[in-house]
Amino acid sequence: MTNLTSEQTAEIESLRSTSSSTLRPVSAGLEEILHKAFPVLDHGFVRVVDYMGDDSAVVQAARVSYGRGTRRVQEDSGLINYLLRHHHTTPFEMAEIKLHVKLPIFVARQWIRHRTASVNEYSARYSVLDNEFYIPEPEHLAAQSTSNRQGRGSVLEGDEAEEVLSLLRRDAEQAYSDYATMLNDPTMPDHRDDRSGLARELARMNLSLNFYTQWYWKTDLHNLMNFLRLRADAHAQYEIRAYADIMMGMMAAWVPISHAAFKEHRMEAVQLSGTAVKAVRRMIEGEVVTQASSGLSTREWQELSAALELASSLG
Amino acid sequence: MTNLTSEQTAEIESLRSTSSSTLRPVSAGLEEILHKAFPVLDHGFVRVVDYMGDDSAVVQAARVSYGRGTRRVQEDSGLINYLLRHHHTTPFEMAEIKLHVKLPIFVARQWIRHRTASVNEYSARYSVLDNEFYIPEPEHLAAQSTSNRQGRGSVLEGDEAEEVLSLLRRDAEQAYSDYATMLNDPTMPDHRDDRSGLARELARMNLSLNFYTQWYWKTDLHNLMNFLRLRADAHAQYEIRAYADIMMGMMAAWVPISHAAFKEHRMEAVQLSGTAVKAVRRMIEGEVVTQASSGLSTREWQELSAALELASSLG
Amino acid sequence: MTNLTSEQTAEIESLRSTSSSTLRPVSAGLEEILHKAFPVLDHGFVRVVDYMGDDSAVVQAARVSYGRGTRRVQEDSGLINYLLRHHHTTPFEMAEIKLHVKLPIFVARQWIRHRTASVNEYSARYSVLDNEFYIPEPEHLAAQSTSNRQGRGSVLEGDEAEEVLSLLRRDAEQAYSDYATMLNDPTMPDHRDDRSGLARELARMNLSLNFYTQWYWKTDLHNLMNFLRLRADAHAQYEIRAYADIMMGMMAAWVPISHAAFKEHRMEAVQLSGTAVKAVRRMIEGEVVTQASSGLSTREWQELSAALELASSLG
Amino acid sequence: MTNLTSEQTAEIESLRSTSSSTLRPVSAGLEEILHKAFPVLDHGFVRVVDYMGDDSAVVQAARVSYGRGTRRVQEDSGLINYLLRHHHTTPFEMAEIKLHVKLPIFVARQWIRHRTASVNEYSARYSVLDNEFYIPEPEHLAAQSTSNRQGRGSVLEGDEAEEVLSLLRRDAEQAYSDYATMLNDPTMPDHRDDRSGLARELARMNLSLNFYTQWYWKTDLHNLMNFLRLRADAHAQYEIRAYADIMMGMMAAWVPISHAAFKEHRMEAVQLSGTAVKAVRRMIEGEVVTQASSGLSTREWQELSAALELASSLG
Repeated sequence: MTNLTSEQTAEIESLRSTSSSTLRPVSAGLEEILHKAFPVLDHGFVRVVDYMGDDSAVVQAARVSYGRGTRRVQEDSGLINYLLRHHHTTPFEMAEIKLHVKLPIFVARQWIRHRTASVNEYSARYSVLDNEFYIPEPEHLAAQSTSNRQGRGSVLEGDEAEEVLSLLRRDAEQAYSDYATMLNDPTMPDHRDDRSGLARELARMNLSLNFYTQWYWKTDLHNLMNFLRLRADAHAQYEIRAYADIMMGMMAAWVPISHAAFKEHRMEAVQLSGTAVKAVRRMIEGEVVTQASSGLSTREWQELSAALELASSLG
Repeated sequence: MTNLTSEQTAEIESLRSTSSSTLRPVSAGLEEILHKAFPVLDHGFVRVVDYMGDDSAVVQAARVSYGRGTRRVQEDSGLINYLLRHHHTTPFEMAEIKLHVKLPIFVARQWIRHRTASVNEYSARYSVLDNEFYIPEPEHLAAQSTSNRQGRGSVLEGDEAEEVLSLLRRDAEQAYSDYATMLNDPTMPDHRDDRSGLARELARMNLSLNFYTQWYWKTDLHNLMNFLRLRADAHAQYEIRAYADIMMGMMAAWVPISHAAFKEHRMEAVQLSGTAVKAVRRMIEGEVVTQASSGLSTREWQELSAALELASSLG
Repeated sequence: MTNLTSEQTAEIESLRSTSSSTLRPVSAGLEEILHKAFPVLDHGFVRVVDYMGDDSAVVQAARVSYGRGTRRVQEDSGLINYLLRHHHTTPFEMAEIKLHVKLPIFVARQWIRHRTASVNEYSARYSVLDNEFYIPEPEHLAAQSTSNRQGRGSVLEGDEAEEVLSLLRRDAEQAYSDYATMLNDPTMPDHRDDRSGLARELARMNLSLNFYTQWYWKTDLHNLMNFLRLRADAHAQYEIRAYADIMMGMMAAWVPISHAAFKEHRMEAVQLSGTAVKAVRRMIEGEVVTQASSGLSTREWQELSAALELASSLG
Repeated sequence: MTNLTSEQTAEIESLRSTSSSTLRPVSAGLEEILHKAFPVLDHGFVRVVDYMGDDSAVVQAARVSYGRGTRRVQEDSGLINYLLRHHHTTPFEMAEIKLHVKLPIFVARQWIRHRTASVNEYSARYSVLDNEFYIPEPEHLAAQSTSNRQGRGSVLEGDEAEEVLSLLRRDAEQAYSDYATMLNDPTMPDHRDDRSGLARELARMNLSLNFYTQWYWKTDLHNLMNFLRLRADAHAQYEIRAYADIMMGMMAAWVPISHAAFKEHRMEAVQLSGTAVKAVRRMIEGEVVTQASSGLSTREWQELSAALELASSLG
């Protein structure tokens, strides 16, 4: 296991060697990977440290709402698909998961926008941050997209790539070295007795956004899906998507039925606007519909063409 | 166990006889009572159906925030008390509990004001409600308080008590009987083939607020404490306090350290306003302080006198 | 204006006759109807009592996020449509509305499930409720649907309808009469000096779920849309939809651009699951797709057929 | 007005010169300062851009809950004090405020922990950040406290202070210069045509946490008070307290009655634990209480001594 200190590795081994007896529902798939750290980026990781409930928790909650009526629904899978298709999401709040995540600060800043979660982050007011910062792999060093203001274009190459990597590395090293100098912490090398050392809550401001932080993050299955729908999407920034991809696998291990329904009704779903519905109806009836005759804007027409792989989108 | 159908009793026995192995933290105290239904009022109950984490989850989250700094704090108990005393409440969000509750609708209406929780309630749109309604025990049949607009006064006695109980019972029975008539459900007695039966979503409006409903309710330890602080308080309506009292015991079994700290820093705590602080300082210095010289309103002075058991409060 | 006391009518007239000067953004459309009560059902109403922001608040918030980049987007309407289409919903949180609503308790119980709102409800612990209860108009007196466990079927007719209305009315009148007797409130008729009167917090339990309550309810535009999407939908119970329909008109007056985008991208939109997308692609290419060959369940196929008005749905 | 671009100054002047007529409640005090930017730190500011309601909104919401009962309470001030003293906080959710804030990223990271608010932040994925970073004034350049892991000690002096300022400034300038080089944005100086430029979403990671960002932040009065209680407190980090202090003044202009009650019942209030209550009772009765006889921990005893200015705290 990379990206872990030996102390962390030992703690995980210890946690995985101590099992207890419980009367609670257990997710066999998640127990398999509980506590294990999955490496992400150059120094980060995600690991599940606790959970509550599984697919059966969703079903149990749905059945109390639907009462005797749901006895008809034979399969849990059918019920879970029905719930997601119709946006009946409260039963998905009944399962909960807690992660321990190590991630660059700029990723943490995107992540924290999801407010319906509980977070306890490592505090650089109280403690000294480690000298760990994110440097992208060359294949993720992308140019600014020229067509999309929030996207990446082609991969940087040659001199430009080398210079970017070199600048990122040099500035981060300088930032940390000066952070350490300003802190003048007695436990760090080069400590000077004739200096007080700057308060940690001030010194931290010298670190750049690619330094790593870590936190415990707890959310329910409904809000986990909201997170994954946005962050495991192809339009998400690669660095947060790297975390979301691992978390998607964790979700599959935890709640396999909900995971399959989530892919079907969220990740692979397409939403048609009222105007798009009318255009699609006409297409199905055999009519040749163009952007102009569809009533859609250029952009929405392009999105629809891509989603439905319309031949006309090539035209 | 009263207040349960035989079906429910069998389900609980089945759940309590099947234990599994888990790598998660386990609360021994809560496992002891997991799934068991504790009777409340005449037909209600509360039971814990799942949970995540225990006192150690609070400590773990606090230590990541305080980082290396908290290695100094030797005891979990000292740390948990410190957190509650200083309103550092996010670590308490890291433990979660899920209850199955059966309760009168008017209690459910108070309960639901606590919004930071997940709820799935039995739906009377989908299913027929049972003929179960709350009738207070004679010792809880209180008169309106004459001094406090939201409080209860002395217990009703004699004819008045008898008449109230008789009216409550008669009206609830009539309401249910007419509910059943309007529903004309094929599974119920006295079904008439020549009638359609009123939609369940309409018929339910004939039931009164003392009929029982049930739900799954999930919240974290921080929000559970917010609930208990208000609802286990002496000023809460007796009927919801009856539930809160049982839940307080569940909290003690689950997270004994947090429970002790909660009693110390919330349930038994007294908050002094800025003006009250000044008055108390003068009292401690030996000065005789009266309401007039305290600067406090009559009402706040009475509250302070009661909280500090001031002799002057008798005057 | 019906459904209002003369006191309320006078208060509204007074509020509408006093205008002030403000430097805040103003929604001309909403000022037109501010404070006015719109009648709903037999005794209910909705009225807007305050608001913050309008369509421009959404645009302003979106532009700070997108920064200089959005200078390209010429029109507010294009931007707002883009935001809703891509579920970028945080800018819609920047506009806020506050309503005063009078509604039957069973409607209030559905409404309150929307947790991301602020509520202050009339308290029957403190005050005596008025003798007002909901009795459906004959054309809304529906039978239970035989095909849909949560729906209504055809309208009840003849004797059955008459009996239902008569039972609903009789039980509500009896419930209120006994509520009054138990309260024995000095301000009410038939007060008996030799009786204490039952505490209001207890007496209220005798009232049925069709009695009216009222509250102030405040939410932001994003959560208002979540509410309307569910409650102005054809599957919502008629009695809450009656409120949602009025509120939809209020939204149109307040934020006309967002309202149009909401209809296009939410109310009239259709979501296709991954499997449905593949089926629709084949249909567009001219293939005859049946339920069996679509891979969809019977129920989802029916929903898709209805949404796209497929001829096959008639077969 | 400092800390503003001329474009921003012009926009504010324009907004303040255009008043409209409204039927909504108006806060005269807040209109006085609406849109005006109040400088904070070296480049930051706070300004109110919109609001809804004032003290009367709190009173109105409380009175609907308490119903006819509150007619007795003569004064709004008495009612608002009562609400805060008894933690009846929902009426304070009925007033809303929206701020435009420019602040260093490390301050933004503390601020965002308050989750019950709406935020739209300037996005460095879409736009290029300006070359503005926070450098503390010499009098705020504090050493790490030796007694308190999260606090500041005495002010740094002489060479150490100069070196810290010089390192902070040099590293921020280097970081920005390399950020610009990596971006290679066509609109910036030194643009090279033979280079693509790194994607903005990647280049931003080179900036340090003292760079400025900005956002719109909207919250209700209840959550504003929660924010101010923590962030205007003497234990808050100076840099966020500088914002909270300005916002406290805005609150006073907006809701003067609530502000006075907030100072009395939150900012200047002292909470006594159950054990502390007992100790204080004994002190009032004239007993000499020591830490040992109080039953309090050393730390809580110190806190109590400080709060009540006990002579024994000097001992």
